[in-house]
Formats: sequence, C-alpha cells, structure tokens
Amino acid sequence: MIQDILITKLNIIKSDDGSVFHGIKSTDIGFEKFGETYFSFINRGAFKGWKKHTKMTMNLIVPIGEIRFNFIDLREDSQTFNERMEINLSVNNYVRLTVPSSIWFGFKGLADQNMLVNIASIPHDPKEVSEENKMELEFN
Amino acid sequence: MIQDILITKLNIIKSDDGSVFHGIKSTDIGFEKFGETYFSFINRGAFKGWKKHTKMTMNLIVPIGEIRFNFIDLREDSQTFNERMEINLSVNNYVRLTVPSSIWFGFKGLADQNMLVNIASIPHDPKEVSEENKMELEFN
Repeated sequence: MIQDILITKLNIIKSDDGSVFHGIKSTDIGFEKFGETYFSFINRGAFKGWKKHTKMTMNLIVPIGEIRFNFIDLREDSQTFNERMEINLSVNNYVRLTVPSSIWFGFKGLADQNMLVNIASIPHDPKEVSEENKMELEFN
Repeated sequence: MIQDILITKLNIIKSDDGSVFHGIKSTDIGFEKFGETYFSFINRGAFKGWKKHTKMTMNLIVPIGEIRFNFIDLREDSQTFNERMEINLSVNNYVRLTVPSSIWFGFKGLADQNMLVNIASIPHDPKEVSEENKMELEFN
C-alpha cells in the first residue's frame, strides 16, 4: 500500500432490467470537492501513463471491463517513499480508488472493453499534469 | 423541447489507445452542485420509469450504447406544461442532458449494452423521488 491512497468497496444494486453501480457521494470518505467527471476508455493491452498531478485528487472507478493500475510514491516526505502498488479494478473487484496528488500512476486495459471514470477534485488543467513516457518503471 | 431541460454537446478526444469522453466540469453550464455520481445499466428493451425528483437536478450522459429518454412536463407553472420530449443519447449523439427537478422521466435501453451516468446535485434519497409505474404514458 501507498500512504494516502484509499480503497473503498462500492455497492452494486442488482436488477433484472440492468444493475445500478454506486460511484461517489459528496458525503463519502475520499470526496474532497468536485471539479470534473470524465470517462477514459483504454483498449486491451494499451497503457496510459506515466502521469502525476500536482493538484488533483482522483477518484477512480471501473464499471466496465478490467483495468490494472500502477502507482509509485516518489514523495520524499512520505512514509511509503519509493514504494509501488498494483491493483486491478473491475466489476469483480468493484472499489473506488482515491489517489492524492503527487503520486505517479499508469494504467493498462485488460479486457476487450475497459472504461475508467475519474471524479476529479479540479477540472482538467494540462499545467498541473507531469508526464513521463519513458519513466524507467516496468510493470506487466 | 421542455422548459429548463438543457442539451449540451460534449467532446470526445479520440486516441488509438482508447478515447476520452468529456462529462461535466464544475464550471459548465448546467452544473449546480455535486451530490452523487452513479452508473445505471439498462438492458435492451427494458424500461425504467416513471420517476420524478422533487429536489435533484440530474446531469445525464450515455458513454456506452444507446438510451431513449422520455420526459413529460406536468409543472402547472411551466411554459411547456403538458408537453413531452423524446431524445436518444449515444456515442453518435454525445450530449449531456440537464434535467431540473419536477420533470417526469423514463428511459429505455436500445443497444446490447447501455450505461447511463447521472451526475446528480444531491445524494440519492428515496424520500425525494416519486414513482408511478402505471402512469398512462406510452412511448415506443
């Protein structure tokens, strides 16, 4: 585990007409403030990363498919400095990941159709995102 | 059209690794405040409705499949009292519907897999929802 990343189990309300999947409420642990919600599809085998936000807290949910997330903590003042974390999110592990700013992350599509929802604390702003495509970090 | 329902065109940022679909920002027209985000799947041919919220403003988005929405305005002080509205949301008509409280609505799944996202102004509260399964309103 990495310090300050939260994993929160979410409910699925089953119905014959189509199930309802919980996301996040304003009263939930991990909710800070609302900036933007967007949907990021990622194809099987594709990898998006590495990125690091300097301001945004992310709340990540995977209601379709399966996505592997990798995190690395390079915050020098962190109790988990230099530690890594890997977790697969899917309907079978239906949780919300709350990720504070300053954590490096990347994610990979594992199923035929994969959708990530980010409920972010601030609107997208390219100026607060660091990207490092050639980061020497390898995950499978 | 029904008074106070907004239709806002949304962007899709295409990528070979998987596209990014916009949802809503805190600075967007139609955003009031954040209460809850949830995901409602609806099977092909299934219908969910009729419902009416007394407090919630809904922001409805369909990033997967195709869903037909029907609305009816029974607000006696509305300029569009007694009017109906039907609209299909899908990737091919990728818009956000902002629906104020007090509008009756129902929706039907049209594709094999259909997902509705609601970014709601208040958390779910069964006490502020009216339901009328036998409402004498027929849409196809």
